[in-house]
Amino acid sequence: MYTLYYSPGTASMAVHLALLEIGAPYQLVTVDIDTGAQHDPAYLKLNPLGKVPTLIIDGRPRTESAALLMMLAERHPEAGLAPPPGSAEREAWLQWIVYLSNALASTYRFWFYPADLGAAEHSPLQRSALQHKIEAVWDHLQSHLAAHGPYLLGRDISAADLLLAMLMRWSRNMPRPATEWPALKLLADLLRARPSWKKLYELEGLSGW
Amino acid sequence: MYTLYYSPGTASMAVHLALLEIGAPYQLVTVDIDTGAQHDPAYLKLNPLGKVPTLIIDGRPRTESAALLMMLAERHPEAGLAPPPGSAEREAWLQWIVYLSNALASTYRFWFYPADLGAAEHSPLQRSALQHKIEAVWDHLQSHLAAHGPYLLGRDISAADLLLAMLMRWSRNMPRPATEWPALKLLADLLRARPSWKKLYELEGLSGW
Repeated sequence: MYTLYYSPGTASMAVHLALLEIGAPYQLVTVDIDTGAQHDPAYLKLNPLGKVPTLIIDGRPRTESAALLMMLAERHPEAGLAPPPGSAEREAWLQWIVYLSNALASTYRFWFYPADLGAAEHSPLQRSALQHKIEAVWDHLQSHLAAHGPYLLGRDISAADLLLAMLMRWSRNMPRPATEWPALKLLADLLRARPSWKKLYELEGLSGW
Repeated sequence: MYTLYYSPGTASMAVHLALLEIGAPYQLVTVDIDTGAQHDPAYLKLNPLGKVPTLIIDGRPRTESAALLMMLAERHPEAGLAPPPGSAEREAWLQWIVYLSNALASTYRFWFYPADLGAAEHSPLQRSALQHKIEAVWDHLQSHLAAHGPYLLGRDISAADLLLAMLMRWSRNMPRPATEWPALKLLADLLRARPSWKKLYELEGLSGW
């Protein structure tokens, strides 16, 4: 039994999708980040950084979405969310997950939280530099997926695609959403057609893309 | 046989350390980032993002330091750089590697490359915000290591510590280097006493900390 501390549509989304893909039993606990519940002393005991998500695995609180995806994939090899250790596909899987986490997740943080750069709002130059940095990732992924897709590892879906679809969704209100890149749009369409995605929208009360 | 495309003291360092810890045969190829050799067409074929390092594994070019550490640890379980899949320590190992990569490596990128934020130099506010963000990571690691150290997983060293020592070293010219945090200083001292560290300094021509 897993317990996922989550907030709708945030970094917990990829982990929630993985739980649904695996079909493992889990409970959901909502962390209301609009009221700052991630800073409550009880939550900070589980997650000292005050971030969402936290996944309780056999009583152990674990954090970092990309790492949680890897933990779940390793604990449930039958779900096929990761290629077997030692294979060439495994190397590609690790590389994509780290790349997405490093190049995209952290840049979004600066995009969405100007205070992390010491200001209430981005300067126009800063805003444009961050936008450019995120769009460069879409360019890179478009080249890869157009040649080797439809998924990051080719023919088969993996946990890396769950992470990517979540990160793509965060661009939906940006000047150029990720879905403007055709190979990324195709990947999003494939993910959105899955029962796990529909179930997640229902459970998290999400709408639109 | 591995081939590591590296540049002294850069993000290739943790991967080079891992190769030395494993004792696997490898060749080194220098990429002179001062002359922009990472943008040469021949190198871009191996690493389209033009970054260092690239590790050739059985003919396959792979990238992203944190992912390369995970690949090497999985390919050489006898080196003990990773706990076995399915263990509680494995979860902690994945979490620390992703955390370091996400919270630290990407913030350093903005610290060292103001152009990524659209300016030739940081504004004082921006500079101080980025410094604060990096120091908050040292605070978090200090709490953890003081209680559960000396290594990230406790008594035994792992690939996560190689990544951490490299990232600590990058702070050596910052206003408050990571070694000002005592538990981090201890971890650095333990790493620097290892034969792999000394050999790496010799091979990469590094000096000082």
